[in-house]
Amino acid sequence: MNFVKNKLVVVGAGMVGSAVLNTVLSLNLLSEVVIVDINDKKARGEALDASHTTSFAYSPNVNVRAGSYEDCKDAQIIVVTAGPSLKIGDKMDRLVLADTNVKVAKSIMENITKYTKDAIIIVVTNPVDIATYYCQKYFDYPKNKIIGTGTLLDTARMRKIIGKKFNVDSKNVHGYVLGEHGGTSFTAWSGVNIAGIPFDELDATFNANNNINKDEVDKEVREAGIEVLQLKGYTSSGIAMSVSRLVKAILLNEESILPVSSTLEGEYGINNVALSIPCVITSNGIEKKLQVPLKQHEVEELKNSAENLKTIINGLKLE
Amino acid sequence: MNFVKNKLVVVGAGMVGSAVLNTVLSLNLLSEVVIVDINDKKARGEALDASHTTSFAYSPNVNVRAGSYEDCKDAQIIVVTAGPSLKIGDKMDRLVLADTNVKVAKSIMENITKYTKDAIIIVVTNPVDIATYYCQKYFDYPKNKIIGTGTLLDTARMRKIIGKKFNVDSKNVHGYVLGEHGGTSFTAWSGVNIAGIPFDELDATFNANNNINKDEVDKEVREAGIEVLQLKGYTSSGIAMSVSRLVKAILLNEESILPVSSTLEGEYGINNVALSIPCVITSNGIEKKLQVPLKQHEVEELKNSAENLKTIINGLKLE
Amino acid sequence: MNFVKNKLVVVGAGMVGSAVLNTVLSLNLLSEVVIVDINDKKARGEALDASHTTSFAYSPNVNVRAGSYEDCKDAQIIVVTAGPSLKIGDKMDRLVLADTNVKVAKSIMENITKYTKDAIIIVVTNPVDIATYYCQKYFDYPKNKIIGTGTLLDTARMRKIIGKKFNVDSKNVHGYVLGEHGGTSFTAWSGVNIAGIPFDELDATFNANNNINKDEVDKEVREAGIEVLQLKGYTSSGIAMSVSRLVKAILLNEESILPVSSTLEGEYGINNVALSIPCVITSNGIEKKLQVPLKQHEVEELKNSAENLKTIINGLKLE
Amino acid sequence: MNFVKNKLVVVGAGMVGSAVLNTVLSLNLLSEVVIVDINDKKARGEALDASHTTSFAYSPNVNVRAGSYEDCKDAQIIVVTAGPSLKIGDKMDRLVLADTNVKVAKSIMENITKYTKDAIIIVVTNPVDIATYYCQKYFDYPKNKIIGTGTLLDTARMRKIIGKKFNVDSKNVHGYVLGEHGGTSFTAWSGVNIAGIPFDELDATFNANNNINKDEVDKEVREAGIEVLQLKGYTSSGIAMSVSRLVKAILLNEESILPVSSTLEGEYGINNVALSIPCVITSNGIEKKLQVPLKQHEVEELKNSAENLKTIINGLKLE
Repeated sequence: MNFVKNKLVVVGAGMVGSAVLNTVLSLNLLSEVVIVDINDKKARGEALDASHTTSFAYSPNVNVRAGSYEDCKDAQIIVVTAGPSLKIGDKMDRLVLADTNVKVAKSIMENITKYTKDAIIIVVTNPVDIATYYCQKYFDYPKNKIIGTGTLLDTARMRKIIGKKFNVDSKNVHGYVLGEHGGTSFTAWSGVNIAGIPFDELDATFNANNNINKDEVDKEVREAGIEVLQLKGYTSSGIAMSVSRLVKAILLNEESILPVSSTLEGEYGINNVALSIPCVITSNGIEKKLQVPLKQHEVEELKNSAENLKTIINGLKLE
Repeated sequence: MNFVKNKLVVVGAGMVGSAVLNTVLSLNLLSEVVIVDINDKKARGEALDASHTTSFAYSPNVNVRAGSYEDCKDAQIIVVTAGPSLKIGDKMDRLVLADTNVKVAKSIMENITKYTKDAIIIVVTNPVDIATYYCQKYFDYPKNKIIGTGTLLDTARMRKIIGKKFNVDSKNVHGYVLGEHGGTSFTAWSGVNIAGIPFDELDATFNANNNINKDEVDKEVREAGIEVLQLKGYTSSGIAMSVSRLVKAILLNEESILPVSSTLEGEYGINNVALSIPCVITSNGIEKKLQVPLKQHEVEELKNSAENLKTIINGLKLE
Repeated sequence: MNFVKNKLVVVGAGMVGSAVLNTVLSLNLLSEVVIVDINDKKARGEALDASHTTSFAYSPNVNVRAGSYEDCKDAQIIVVTAGPSLKIGDKMDRLVLADTNVKVAKSIMENITKYTKDAIIIVVTNPVDIATYYCQKYFDYPKNKIIGTGTLLDTARMRKIIGKKFNVDSKNVHGYVLGEHGGTSFTAWSGVNIAGIPFDELDATFNANNNINKDEVDKEVREAGIEVLQLKGYTSSGIAMSVSRLVKAILLNEESILPVSSTLEGEYGINNVALSIPCVITSNGIEKKLQVPLKQHEVEELKNSAENLKTIINGLKLE
Repeated sequence: MNFVKNKLVVVGAGMVGSAVLNTVLSLNLLSEVVIVDINDKKARGEALDASHTTSFAYSPNVNVRAGSYEDCKDAQIIVVTAGPSLKIGDKMDRLVLADTNVKVAKSIMENITKYTKDAIIIVVTNPVDIATYYCQKYFDYPKNKIIGTGTLLDTARMRKIIGKKFNVDSKNVHGYVLGEHGGTSFTAWSGVNIAGIPFDELDATFNANNNINKDEVDKEVREAGIEVLQLKGYTSSGIAMSVSRLVKAILLNEESILPVSSTLEGEYGINNVALSIPCVITSNGIEKKLQVPLKQHEVEELKNSAENLKTIINGLKLE
């Protein structure tokens, strides 16, 4: 039997890729972490800096280094973060970004598939739903092994916002942000609760007076990324932790339910577009897609999100 | 300002106390852990054995040692595990156990209160609801600072049972076991769900055929402790992890919602008896008790649990 | 490529086996942990109790269960703890214990080798050096994949004793206890230091007056196990953490240097007997045995330890 | 008794400060982390991004937020990272940097001391030895409570370099880089060893042919920071982990020995200048400075480092 070391490859050594590198190291789960970038200098700098962290008493002796796509051949997980991101002052033209990044994704997938069809690929590159769809559709790669981070981070943000209002651990706030990771994402409010207390009863049960405006929360969630971008110039910590959560679920075969992006195949009547719904994550990647109960108007929002994404896809002339 | 080291005292060096000792050490959160037992030899043996674990690369240099009640004076948390437990072959006469252990609890509280009214006291001694009630009622100690582990472990067991049936991480199974930690505990089924999917829709959504019988699950949960007792001779790992979860929530002021035992003051119309409902746990102990929504028949079950406990209490002639 | 999940099998559900089970779980590194015992009831009890710990917020959803030797076939690590241990009041006749436990080891190895020659086997069963020697000699199993825990725990104990005397983190105390895990073990004092300060200069540098008597420390280390045994009735925490340290080094391919038992092949002029010297531990098991510098009298002590073990081996008529 | 939550304040939200923020969060030891920067927007962006990480299953519900110096009043640890760092293309004029950053340090200390003299202050701002000296000398703050990160990171780098050459966990490489964190730092080679094997015997014992050139290693260590800077544009991961190691030692009162910078008072005949020698770190900060054994030529190197720093200090006209 050929035991495989817990090995992960990060593609892209920008702000997100380097945050992913450092965050997955702190999982203490990996024996080898390789970072790959066209800008090999940047990749080597990130790897060198990170490698110094492995000398300390509480750090495993991980083999952290810059590498190449060939390193994918015995990796269990590959995290794709490459491609330009939105910058402050951009007109935020997602179509342009989509066009560029689908090309980036194409090139990366061509390189990865030279070496493996076994690794779980976590797609982070934005627009993540477009990139995920493209990778699943145009490459002969097991579809379950391609996961877009999707609304995993949006969901974390929504839970944090709600948790803070009621002074409650956000781990006890349940519910999901679904759909596109972007302008048409939405909170499925019918399922939001704290410890089983439905959203609409929270003020009463907590003896609070928050009078939460759902639209405002949705807006805050949707714009959280932009806000971080405007405040600090880029986003990194939150998305890196999202990847890290997926990595742990995959490596430990946790069967955890996390909202991630994948191409739907009839769920909620939606086909041929990737977006986020809750999925069971195991060492096989996406083990199962869950149709959690949604109100009719929430299904409509999901379909709206799907249509919006399809419009972008159609504008791209994917091939 | 007087910074207090993260110090915890375990009272009782039996199977539960020693499991608590070793489990809280693995939190990597404490700088000092003291174990106290009338049988000082046993306490010293547990402390000595555990102290050897602190030499390894990933272990903090915790000061683990046997001590005395005087150690409570600067402890942040005191875990009370002392008192006989049920043994296989016992007629399981809970009234006798209650009588004995209330006396044990009395003696321990008298000792603790000589030194502190600041520490959070986690009561584990069974019957935990009786012991918790007694400690809260007969001692002039801040009530919020006394927490009974209650149905925290029962809830973990229920989630595990459900999670395994649907091949899902039990961290994604929500809902609570409430009431007495004992024969009248019950799952509040109306709130049980996986990732927001109501219990009754689980088979359909997961395309499964589990046809779970709720009464059987309730029975399995209620008897899990007895089963472990009969299989291995005592229970330790599960209850130790329950304590450990509380310790982390307290030390990090997490505002986590956990079902624990405390004397109700009108919640669900119940007074003057301790049992478990979900509570917000912070560094102040029980920050808030939550009246999560229950169906009428569930409220009745809770009241039934309360009555049952009151009968035991009345039989004890507490003073 | 067939990715193997991080799976570990514990053989033996006694006090040591169950402590190993719970301690390796807290590594957050394993996806599956199986416990096997002739007493299947005990194994199931330990597994059931431990499984309840996996429902809590910070616990991975590990598959913990009782199983059989067949589970070894895709395990990465097998921990052998089975066999009777010394009890208080025993005449401590190690020869008798050796005789019994070599038979136990034989039976276990016959069962394991039906299913795998790939897993790393960690031998804990005492007398560990005899059991390790036997497993390496009489089975056609890769020798590097059999590791006896040896003086790993004795070394931890020595470091703790020294560290406490100088109020220093035992992680900063260096040096090894070598030889037999038992009566002829010895501290290689020439290498003992704190942060590079040689043992003989510690009092001066720390401005202390410890005047440590080396023989007394050696005696304390050698008798620590007996002391724990006499105080608490058995030993568990320390040995479980020793195993846990090895498990992390193996799973993460750490290349860590740890003093463990294996059959020497000429190191220090010793052959054909298993005892502990520092070894490099990787995912291949014992990657390299290190002849750390010893004074001549220390080499003599090592040889004395070897002779003593050979006398026991010869008395056993191993076959 | 007033229990103080585990609270840490990071001053400076640049690349180092934000890496510190995220790295200390992953310690799972803090209940509150506050980041302060003149550029409040940047601080808020870092805090917002990091706060999203606290919603995930394995993250404690830490209160992460932007704040002000007033937050220092109940903090246990304050990490000072503010001030410009070297940039690529700079003439690397350390005197100019020193001048600027001493002014930055002055302003920060004036602000901190308005609120506390209890917190442990970890100085990261470069040139760290100058900044540490300045803070210890010109403020009436307990000297033991001011720690410069000094050669802690250089030591980690040296250990990594040596460990990789012999395929050994760098946690098993011992020895220190001492003196200035900068151009005159040096490895105290007489104390470097792997698992007790002296540096000069490594090739023989490991049957290797590394023929390590000490001067080259020293150079590589000394220039590692510059190399990372040139490759990735700044340094962050390594220094953040150095801080994180200190934070754990302080919060858990570990008595760990770590090479850090503080004003010497006669050690090795050196006075009135801050540089790094191994120190015992507890919740009191620097509990003890250790004069580890050095060869005469190493003492000379240390003195040379001291002289060099004094020259810079004298050039600054500190007041």
